[in-house]
This record gives sequence, C-alpha cells and structure tokens, in this order.
Amino acid sequence: MHIFQRIDEARSFCSRARSGGTDIGFVPTMGAFHEGHISLIRSCREENETVMVSIFVNPAQFGPDEDFVAYPRDLDYDAGLCREMGVDAVFAPSVAEMYPTPQTLSLDFGGLTSDLEGRHRPGHFAGVGLVIAKLFNVVGACRAYFGDKDWQQLAVVRRLTAELAFPVEVLGCETVRDSDGLALSSRNAYLSATERQSALGLYRSLRVGSDKIESGERSRDAVEEAMALVLAEVKGLSPDYAVVRDAATLMPVDFLSGDLRLLVAANVGGTRLIDNLGARADRPPPLSTLGEGVRA
Amino acid sequence: MHIFQRIDEARSFCSRARSGGTDIGFVPTMGAFHEGHISLIRSCREENETVMVSIFVNPAQFGPDEDFVAYPRDLDYDAGLCREMGVDAVFAPSVAEMYPTPQTLSLDFGGLTSDLEGRHRPGHFAGVGLVIAKLFNVVGACRAYFGDKDWQQLAVVRRLTAELAFPVEVLGCETVRDSDGLALSSRNAYLSATERQSALGLYRSLRVGSDKIESGERSRDAVEEAMALVLAEVKGLSPDYAVVRDAATLMPVDFLSGDLRLLVAANVGGTRLIDNLGARADRPPPLSTLGEGVRA
Repeated sequence: MHIFQRIDEARSFCSRARSGGTDIGFVPTMGAFHEGHISLIRSCREENETVMVSIFVNPAQFGPDEDFVAYPRDLDYDAGLCREMGVDAVFAPSVAEMYPTPQTLSLDFGGLTSDLEGRHRPGHFAGVGLVIAKLFNVVGACRAYFGDKDWQQLAVVRRLTAELAFPVEVLGCETVRDSDGLALSSRNAYLSATERQSALGLYRSLRVGSDKIESGERSRDAVEEAMALVLAEVKGLSPDYAVVRDAATLMPVDFLSGDLRLLVAANVGGTRLIDNLGARADRPPPLSTLGEGVRA
Repeated sequence: MHIFQRIDEARSFCSRARSGGTDIGFVPTMGAFHEGHISLIRSCREENETVMVSIFVNPAQFGPDEDFVAYPRDLDYDAGLCREMGVDAVFAPSVAEMYPTPQTLSLDFGGLTSDLEGRHRPGHFAGVGLVIAKLFNVVGACRAYFGDKDWQQLAVVRRLTAELAFPVEVLGCETVRDSDGLALSSRNAYLSATERQSALGLYRSLRVGSDKIESGERSRDAVEEAMALVLAEVKGLSPDYAVVRDAATLMPVDFLSGDLRLLVAANVGGTRLIDNLGARADRPPPLSTLGEGVRA
C-alpha cells in the first residue's frame, strides 16, 4: 500500500491507474476511523479496482472555538486498518501541502448551508467544499464515498459536484450505529458513560418522528413537536434543532411529501452530536381511487 | 475536427486522449474570434498534441445591464477558423448544458476582485470562476491559454487553479494589438471610426505610465497622475480608472517595486474598454554601491 504525502505523487498514482483502464474509488476522511469509515472503505473496495483513502484533518472546516487541535489523530492505526482492508493508496498530506498560501477563494452554497449545521458552524461548509474540491482535483475522475451521518455535508458535496461538473460520482452510505442505536462518530470518544446514555435521545427522537410520518402524519409542525418532546425529556441533553426537511435541498416542507430527512443536533456535556434519518411521505392516492362519497 | 455540444462527449474525448498518452492544450473562449484568439490557439497548437477550444458565451459573467444578448456570436465562422488551424475538437455547449439547474454555489475571490473590473462589474468574476471551474472539470488535466488582455481575469484563473488545486497549467499570452496600438477585443466591433480614435488613448496612457517607471519614477501617485492626464485630454473618452498595481495580487503598491501591472478602463460612446501593460520596477541598488556621502 502506498502512503502519499504530496499532491503530485497522489495525482500521478491516480492518473496512471486511470490510464491503465481501472476505475478509482475514493474515500475522503479526517481519520480517527470507526466502523462507519470501515463500512465506507469496504463498499469502496467492493465496487472499484483501485481504492484511494485520504486522511486529512481539514483546518478550514473548524471554527476558531472548535476542536481542530483536540480532534483525534492516529495515522499509524488508520493506515494499518487501510492496509488490512486492501486499500491501494492513502493520501495523508500536511496542512502546508494542502494550504501552501493563505486561502483567498471561498465557496458559498447559499440557502443549502445557511441553516442547521451551517447556522451553528459559520464557515464550516465553505471549508468542507474547499477541501473536497481540492481532493477531487487531486484524485480526478472517481466514485467518492461519504457517510449519510453528515447529511448536510453530503448535500453540499452533491451540490458542489453537480454545479462545478466534477467528474465524480458521489455515493452516500448508510449511517453505522452501535447496537443501542447511537450513530458512530469520532466525537463519541469525548462522551462519559452517563453522557452516552443521554446521547441515545437523538436517535429516539428521529425514530419517533419517522414513525409518525409512516403512520400518515403530514404536518411538519406535528412531527417536529414530537421529535422535540423526546429530546426535552432527556436529562443532560441540550437540543439545538429537531426538524424535517426536503432530503435534497434541506428546505422546510410544510405539507410533508416526497423524500424527506429528519435531522437533529444536541449538546451532551461539552460535545455536540448530530444524527439524521430518512423518511418517505408518499402523496395521497388520487381522488378517483378513494371509493364512494368523494367529490372533486 | 470534432464539435461537441455535450459535456460527457467532450470529457470522454479528453480522457481518451490523455489515456493514449497525449497532452491536452485548452483555449476557453466566448467565440467572436479575432487575432487575439487566433494567437492563443496558435500557441496552443504548437505546444500540445491535442487541442481543445471551447466556445461558450457565459451568461453567469454578464451583469443584468450588460451585453449578453448582443454579444457577437458566429459559431460557423469560429469553428471554420478552428478547423483551418488544426484544432482537434471544439466544445460548444448550450446554456442549458452548462447550467441545467439554477446555480446556487458561488465563488468569492475576496480582495482580488473587489476593485477595478470587479468593482465595476459586480458578480462578473464569480461568473468567470464558475465557468472556468466547470470547463476545467470537463477537459481535465491540461495546459490552458488565456490572453493578458483581461489581466484581472487571468489573475482570477491563476488563483482559482492554485487554491482549488486544478491539474491545469495556466499560461498567459501577450495582448495582440492593431498597428495603431489598440488592443484587440470582440467589443471593438461596437466602435465607430471616431470612437476608435478616442479608444487609442488607453494604450497611450499605459505607455506614458510605463515610460515613467522605466525612467525611474517610483511614486505610484506620480505614475497614475500622468496616466490620468493622458486620458483626460482625449475627447469622447470617459475614464474609469488608470492605476499601477502589483501584477499578481492587483493590490496597490505605494513605493513601486517588483512586477507591476498598469491597468486602464474607459467608456467610449456606449462601449467599455480595458487595457493593461506590464512594467518592472527593480529595487534601488544597495546603499553600499551608491558612492561617497551616503550614510546607513
């Protein structure tokens, strides 16, 4: 397995692979691997001839008061896992390699990032977009794998790819959860045993919301109130938002229909956690199939 | 010669060329070819095995009051010239192909575009950056040729390429001028004979400024005043700016030194014209070589 620290080495490796006629699968990560990453790498390994994993804790997506310095890093462990899983190359650049000069160009995703995580973390998605654009330009044409766990991030990456016409197929992979339902996250390492119990409220809230939609509830307010109620009852958990949105645009939908996404965020102790779940609200059947007594 | 209207066709053509081991030269244009474009295509043809020219009048870089609709278009003539010059492929997409959905992502180049043309044409360089990013993602790794004539645009493209790590080598080519010194521009077609005479003031102003720097003038104010004076004396010409800037950052430099760029913009009749010229201000010799009587 290759480990590249320089952009030109990683780029040459990918160009050679493509010229040789093999397809490239790419998993961009910030390291600190858990089962979520492993499931992404496993899918990527199954579906592509050449597999590239990047490991880079991207300073541009951390706010000044966030945990860039404290963010867990263990390149040896992560690279070892990559080797075991049959990854062909790891790209692990330094900050200086990725940002050799102060960044003056910024990306703005408009309404897609003005709410939810974007509201809570100003500049976060501009930083995500920036590093993903750079990484896509290093790797080139590929299939790129992202976790559903960071749903707004996935929407940003899809938008970036579509609107700048990157030659990349973006694939979202289902969130991996512990047996108790907690979505895996590198930040779970910050939680005490008690905090972890409180953290389970996020997934419970999502399940309650999605159950309501499945039972036919079509009022956004009713679903969001039910979700908020679950979070409010959990000791030690300070909710930020609990919403239902259009799955692609993340815009609010008053009468629930189509592909939806339920999203929650809350603080547990000093740790901010997010989670989300999909739901589908099919349109009501056409009036003509509703039987007798219905008038147009 | 191929003429591609679809992104996937143009992209496949370039991928195949690269996989076959040939290098790709790329000239992005808005059509309406004059000798300036021809000189870009000629350089590109000499320096690359495969030559791709794009012809696309990019709506995203025109303001609401600008000449997007009136902008000269003649694809048959332009494609004919490409064929004569041995171009391998022309990419001439429709607006719907390049912008299938409303654009929500925007690029901001900060201080690089807040002044000069950027001040006069809000949103212009965001639109330029957008279309160039898309075109680079269609063509892939290449050498890309741009005219020095649109100097701020060239600076934007260099910045975009560097900060998003596009696998592209950006090459600036010297402005082509008529025998009277007027920089070639598709918008010169809008000028009457009298207006054309007035338009010559732009280049005279640049020459006066660069002569002053060559003669040792190091005060920015003195150079800019001399340039403004030339423009003020021309009947029918309404100057917008006449400045000396750092050639790469386009920031003002009080004591002139290093690589500089003189830039002017003016309206002639209803037509806005721009021009620019390079100058080098070498540092004064070290004090120790200045002879007697000088103290540190």
